[in-house]
Amino acid sequence: MKYLRNTWYVAAWSDEISGDRPLARTLLDTPVALYRRSDNTTAAILDRCPHRFAPLSAGCVKDNQVFCAYHGLGFDGTGTCTHNPHGPIRRSMDIPSYRTHEAHRAVWIWMGEQQQADPALIPDLSYLAGAPETAFSKGNMVAQGNYEIFVDNILDLSHTDYLHPTTLGGAGITGTKPEVHETDDFVDVTWFVPNQSPSPLLKSLFAELPEKTDTFQRVRWYAPGVMRLVAGSMAAGAPEAEAMANFNAHILTPETATSSHYFYAATRNFRVEDGELNQQIAATREHIFGTEDKPMIEAIQNRMGDAEFWSLNPLLFSIDAAPVRVRRRLQRLIDAEQGDPC
Amino acid sequence: MKYLRNTWYVAAWSDEISGDRPLARTLLDTPVALYRRSDNTTAAILDRCPHRFAPLSAGCVKDNQVFCAYHGLGFDGTGTCTHNPHGPIRRSMDIPSYRTHEAHRAVWIWMGEQQQADPALIPDLSYLAGAPETAFSKGNMVAQGNYEIFVDNILDLSHTDYLHPTTLGGAGITGTKPEVHETDDFVDVTWFVPNQSPSPLLKSLFAELPEKTDTFQRVRWYAPGVMRLVAGSMAAGAPEAEAMANFNAHILTPETATSSHYFYAATRNFRVEDGELNQQIAATREHIFGTEDKPMIEAIQNRMGDAEFWSLNPLLFSIDAAPVRVRRRLQRLIDAEQGDPC
Amino acid sequence: MKYLRNTWYVAAWSDEISGDRPLARTLLDTPVALYRRSDNTTAAILDRCPHRFAPLSAGCVKDNQVFCAYHGLGFDGTGTCTHNPHGPIRRSMDIPSYRTHEAHRAVWIWMGEQQQADPALIPDLSYLAGAPETAFSKGNMVAQGNYEIFVDNILDLSHTDYLHPTTLGGAGITGTKPEVHETDDFVDVTWFVPNQSPSPLLKSLFAELPEKTDTFQRVRWYAPGVMRLVAGSMAAGAPEAEAMANFNAHILTPETATSSHYFYAATRNFRVEDGELNQQIAATREHIFGTEDKPMIEAIQNRMGDAEFWSLNPLLFSIDAAPVRVRRRLQRLIDAEQGDPC
Repeated sequence: MKYLRNTWYVAAWSDEISGDRPLARTLLDTPVALYRRSDNTTAAILDRCPHRFAPLSAGCVKDNQVFCAYHGLGFDGTGTCTHNPHGPIRRSMDIPSYRTHEAHRAVWIWMGEQQQADPALIPDLSYLAGAPETAFSKGNMVAQGNYEIFVDNILDLSHTDYLHPTTLGGAGITGTKPEVHETDDFVDVTWFVPNQSPSPLLKSLFAELPEKTDTFQRVRWYAPGVMRLVAGSMAAGAPEAEAMANFNAHILTPETATSSHYFYAATRNFRVEDGELNQQIAATREHIFGTEDKPMIEAIQNRMGDAEFWSLNPLLFSIDAAPVRVRRRLQRLIDAEQGDPC
Repeated sequence: MKYLRNTWYVAAWSDEISGDRPLARTLLDTPVALYRRSDNTTAAILDRCPHRFAPLSAGCVKDNQVFCAYHGLGFDGTGTCTHNPHGPIRRSMDIPSYRTHEAHRAVWIWMGEQQQADPALIPDLSYLAGAPETAFSKGNMVAQGNYEIFVDNILDLSHTDYLHPTTLGGAGITGTKPEVHETDDFVDVTWFVPNQSPSPLLKSLFAELPEKTDTFQRVRWYAPGVMRLVAGSMAAGAPEAEAMANFNAHILTPETATSSHYFYAATRNFRVEDGELNQQIAATREHIFGTEDKPMIEAIQNRMGDAEFWSLNPLLFSIDAAPVRVRRRLQRLIDAEQGDPC
Repeated sequence: MKYLRNTWYVAAWSDEISGDRPLARTLLDTPVALYRRSDNTTAAILDRCPHRFAPLSAGCVKDNQVFCAYHGLGFDGTGTCTHNPHGPIRRSMDIPSYRTHEAHRAVWIWMGEQQQADPALIPDLSYLAGAPETAFSKGNMVAQGNYEIFVDNILDLSHTDYLHPTTLGGAGITGTKPEVHETDDFVDVTWFVPNQSPSPLLKSLFAELPEKTDTFQRVRWYAPGVMRLVAGSMAAGAPEAEAMANFNAHILTPETATSSHYFYAATRNFRVEDGELNQQIAATREHIFGTEDKPMIEAIQNRMGDAEFWSLNPLLFSIDAAPVRVRRRLQRLIDAEQGDPC
């Protein structure tokens, strides 16, 4: 499968990567070994020794290098062979490496041309970095579905009314026309639902909410699969500045053509010192994502089989405005990178 | 794989299909959602929403329609889109549906041209419908083997002497020449074994049986995989009208090229009010089919791999008279339907 | 995949094959049924009945023949059909058989031209046959990796310093230049490590070992995957005749292109009547092979995927002298057999 390569993907949450053992993770069909140096910087190299093709992730990290568990060859984070117990070191022993950059509690990886890997291009998720521990939670999972199906899922929040009717949904997104706004850097989609009962989940968490609220949800998509989602509710008619708001991130990184790494996180602007509430939110999200979203994405992948999305003639509704623009835009980016003249 | 399409297949037993949730079943490589309307009629639609390809079987049945669990689109049993919460309904939103007809305790499906779907073409298994509950049992399973291997199994009952020696076999079918009779509508094969000890299973169930019995087994095959099997025993020399007889159905519906739905049922003409005997018969059959027939069919599929049956040069004996005619006849029917000039 | 066919492979350890039920084993992508005749000789036939392709291994052994569990056909160990309950026997009913020969506690199989199957060509592992039970142990497993990866593993013992540092390794093989010697019949590789501390495993088993020992390891490879390994230690400077030595066999038989049967055995020249030590050695080996070698071979197969070994440009070090010669020699043998002019 063709992926956008000159872009930042999330490879892992920061705390998944240690200085003891490399983390093995398949990204864009490529096995990658990720580890941390003693100066706390991160490194990513091809997870395959060039000698006999053992996974380097089976080895250990020592002195900022990874040592192969099979014959002891050592490599630093640039892929340079630094140690060969069986003879001289030659540059033909070097392996591919990938630029990484740590930001917003995540380790980002650039799997294209290294020279283009500018950290300034990482989407701004700084609200995650600054969140207190009692108002921050995160998680990740692998789902057996293409990442674009997952991106569609977040860009079209009308699904919450049907897939999550007893929790996130029920607040009447359906029937609300999403407003889509495109810039060179991102695509925004906003859903504003005035004067409605709060969602069942909000009601159960916050007895103090008014009967009727105005609700807004704003998703900002950065190619290829990083999304910020701000969801807020305030008393009907009140200004947005008064909203109880959750600041989420939904991040998709392709594992293979038919499987994805799904990273998610959230913080909020209310009861930020309530650690118990924080745990409740995290547990509810794990439950919803694991038992509702993930099975649906995987079932869709199953029904699509090997078919290309557009070849199946999907119906297009107003709710699809953002997903469709994003799919087309991403395709143009990939085509441009591939030098595809079409 | 090429299947006969203009024919009735059993999709499910009647009691598998409810009015609450659709039943998901893959038939002829096609995902189908089956459900029941409030007037008790059944419906079958493609189990894939045309919007984002969610399985409709994940949704619910309400007001005789299925509503998608992902975005709420509704479809009736003809595949007509009846509800779109996200905009106007257009006929381009309709999905394929399949004619169904309920008969003989089963729901039949027609996966070819709807105009040709004549319920009169459903094989007559009315003996099942009329059977009292104390003399009726049924079941179904999925086996990882092509449906024609399973059809062979029923059309060649000599296998019972070897695969089921301690239960169904042992009555000396081997050495008995099967009589095969073909009409435009079906193929009949009859095995008559005179003056033999009853099978071990019969002996264990019926201590009152005479030492020597005459036994007949008659299979009637209807394309592509519906078989009636009448098996009877009477005192040696007595007329068939005096036989203790079991009236069975063995029905195969392809799931994929290498897996099958196996539906089976039975009633009888003796001790029809003995519910305990009925349970004993059902439990024995489940055991035999599940631990002897199913593993054998699956092992044969494994040994055949991707090879086409005839390409493996199967040996042909007199016991294969019916299976071979049936395989060839079915092939002719499929070729004719495909417009294959050969 | 192309395998060397005119050669002896180990199909099973002798005690795996009985006279009651055939043993089913896939060898070189071919399903084989192995059994024992009443005169104790062994037989191997294609594990697929020519009638309806049932696995003959599902049947029983009687009177030196295998009888199919599906329709009762009988075959002797030459593949000759000896019994047909359903009609006359014709030679078209015969199935392929394979020459077997029992030697060195193993059953060897020849899957090429039967006329060439000379038992004199079986590699000499007679030290296994003669070993007392208290100084003999063996085992086998299936690993999901190509057999040549496994052969490399034994021919390059430097891996023990890295993959088995707390048991077999640590004796400083790394840095020792292996001596390779080729003849028409085999390839020998010897590692001699003078004046070193014994390996952690040796130390733990034998407190009486001197502080410093000389260690030798000699592997003799016979095509395609039979290896003798003699590993000995003696006081530094002492003659080899005084060594405590283990006499091992490592035998690989391809199951498929990406999976292997791994047979291993060992005897020794010291404390040969110590049955407890024998069990300790066997248990340690099972642990090392099962938790260190097998996972590594399988991980390498995973990283290689479908790629051909040389297409991945493996690095070649002095430690690879034997593996590389063996891979090339085996390739020449296979090419010659295939009549490949290159």
